[in-house]
Amino acid sequence: MIGNAPFTAAEYDRRLTLTREAMQRAGLDAIFVTDPSNQAWLTGYDGWSFYVHQGVIVTQKREPIWWGRHMDMMGGRRTCWMDHANILGYGDHYVQSTEIHPMQDLASVLKTRGLEKARIGVEMENYYYSAKAHEVLRTNLPDAHLSDATGLVNWQRLIKSEDEIGFIRKAAGITNNVMQIALERAESGMRKNDLVADIMHAGITGVGDDWGDYPAIVPLTPSGLDATAAHLTWNGDKMRAGEATFFELSGCYRRYHAPLCRTIYLGTPPDQMKRAEEAQLEGIAAGLDAARVGNRTCDIANAFMAVMVNHGIEREGRMGYPIGLSYPPDWGERSASIRSEDTTVLQAGMVFHFMPALWMDTWGLETTETILITEDGPAEPLCNIDRKLFMKA
Amino acid sequence: MIGNAPFTAAEYDRRLTLTREAMQRAGLDAIFVTDPSNQAWLTGYDGWSFYVHQGVIVTQKREPIWWGRHMDMMGGRRTCWMDHANILGYGDHYVQSTEIHPMQDLASVLKTRGLEKARIGVEMENYYYSAKAHEVLRTNLPDAHLSDATGLVNWQRLIKSEDEIGFIRKAAGITNNVMQIALERAESGMRKNDLVADIMHAGITGVGDDWGDYPAIVPLTPSGLDATAAHLTWNGDKMRAGEATFFELSGCYRRYHAPLCRTIYLGTPPDQMKRAEEAQLEGIAAGLDAARVGNRTCDIANAFMAVMVNHGIEREGRMGYPIGLSYPPDWGERSASIRSEDTTVLQAGMVFHFMPALWMDTWGLETTETILITEDGPAEPLCNIDRKLFMKA
Repeated sequence: MIGNAPFTAAEYDRRLTLTREAMQRAGLDAIFVTDPSNQAWLTGYDGWSFYVHQGVIVTQKREPIWWGRHMDMMGGRRTCWMDHANILGYGDHYVQSTEIHPMQDLASVLKTRGLEKARIGVEMENYYYSAKAHEVLRTNLPDAHLSDATGLVNWQRLIKSEDEIGFIRKAAGITNNVMQIALERAESGMRKNDLVADIMHAGITGVGDDWGDYPAIVPLTPSGLDATAAHLTWNGDKMRAGEATFFELSGCYRRYHAPLCRTIYLGTPPDQMKRAEEAQLEGIAAGLDAARVGNRTCDIANAFMAVMVNHGIEREGRMGYPIGLSYPPDWGERSASIRSEDTTVLQAGMVFHFMPALWMDTWGLETTETILITEDGPAEPLCNIDRKLFMKA
Repeated sequence: MIGNAPFTAAEYDRRLTLTREAMQRAGLDAIFVTDPSNQAWLTGYDGWSFYVHQGVIVTQKREPIWWGRHMDMMGGRRTCWMDHANILGYGDHYVQSTEIHPMQDLASVLKTRGLEKARIGVEMENYYYSAKAHEVLRTNLPDAHLSDATGLVNWQRLIKSEDEIGFIRKAAGITNNVMQIALERAESGMRKNDLVADIMHAGITGVGDDWGDYPAIVPLTPSGLDATAAHLTWNGDKMRAGEATFFELSGCYRRYHAPLCRTIYLGTPPDQMKRAEEAQLEGIAAGLDAARVGNRTCDIANAFMAVMVNHGIEREGRMGYPIGLSYPPDWGERSASIRSEDTTVLQAGMVFHFMPALWMDTWGLETTETILITEDGPAEPLCNIDRKLFMKA
């Protein structure tokens, strides 16, 4: 470990080397990384400060620089592995000002580092790199060549190290506990927010010494018609007999996730739903079997969809994404996708949330797994909750 | 109420009228609103789907349009007040694709609505409007005039309606409960994550029928040296005697917030901290007294700082912001600021998080209030937790 950063110097070296090689292939002298997950992956930086402009500057030779609000430099010193001289801050008068912009300060920093005319990659498709930020940076670095490096770091994160897999296994342990509590306590008459309170309590408590961190997405727990929508959050309504509720939940261990979905029906599910369950479970088994080294992400999606077609169920679209280290608003890694258009070749150490949920007209059925691509054989699901539609009288 | 939206038709009319007047002043035919808080404020839309591109199109005459991922149209129908014909979706193949971009679909929608050559405002400084989104939209609407409308809607939110103040009071009730629990349970030897689990549980449970929603920022609860940094989140370390811990927490009622900070010291605080407490409380009282209709936001900041100067304490920078409806990653409204450079004139119905925290070399002292600007007299703090440095043996 270096300082308070969660991984070893060797692990950060591995990450930097991968990133620098990718920069070289892309013809970049430097990158400015705004995705908080990428920042944390490279430097260890961890704080809820991404609502102001901040980022990491990576060049071929120098130690990375963390740059952010002056007030957050202390957080940078507490969490990053780099020398304190490489934690830089801009003044508070830049924050949410309409007169001046933090990117003016960043431009000065880049100039001071001799990057005035450099080829600099920026993450143009990221929550934390606004259209305005790009415009101001471009204006203030007229001789630099800014180009889009979205995903450059994300793709380096696809194959996890042993240490990272260890973190994800701990997150999966927390997920097991959280899902167990959700399934045990859900019952007719229970207010949904009270159930979510218990879910969150279990997630943050964690398991033994594995204390729980905040997941990048809040618990998704919709019932009945709300469950036909993919991303509604809870309210104070009571759970009712005759309704399905799906739980999309993840434990989080030091920012690493292991999402899982299960569905519970209070009462006796309609036949159509039972048939869909059967198809979905068969499809998931086919997907896991296709999730082998050398196959592609599309093979997982296609294996699942072939089973659906056999059962006469229409299901298209994306059904999974790589997961690992993440910050709100998304726990996906935003590189590969499990979908028929995606041809990423599977390698050992990749971890995906395989998510072939079914959203129908009057109910949703979410049964998913966090899976690890192994050296040989089918993918290993990392959680251990029964894979089925749960029912309760 | 209209459908499941939380406010009345009259309230949404009020909001639309304010927004359209601001558009007219800015010379805009249409705006495309990406800030999830602005979307919810205008339409009622509420879901954790802002991690993909989505937004609201407002023109002078037509009912607003909610546009997002096809999968989230169902959520739009469940939560927005508009006619279902005005809930539009784009296909899943656009999601996080490197080949095509959702903004291509948005450009088609705008063209179909006769906005091909329109003057369209976009929120260039927003988490959910990326540099790439802007580039693609501009390329696909070559004859439109896109301009920066960041803050246009946010500024209309500054003065709250009675209904909104009612929501914020409910949030404040939840905050009281959450803070009480944090202060009661904090003790030497308690793991920080266990305390956060209790905090979250109380926040989501809510108070009576006022069920708790997720706050836009997770509980910030750092101790000791970590509390000298502004935005570190928790870990599994035990709380210890001889350390200060600050709690920055908010209850949330249907996306409305009422943040509050208090600090607790386990043991006997150093004299320097006691003196800072005295100065801070005097400064807050001066700030509240300056927070009157007709005064300006800078008057609040200056009143506080004048007291600090008298006590020989250096404190600059921003010390507050408007609050209300919000989504991660920030519960501030991103319009006015309480700081010496800001000259916004205070009006009745404005609500701020007045946040004159002190971060020193070895400890942090956060004591803050959510305040309502009233018709006459000083501002009204909406929470009722004792304003002091808490101590426990």
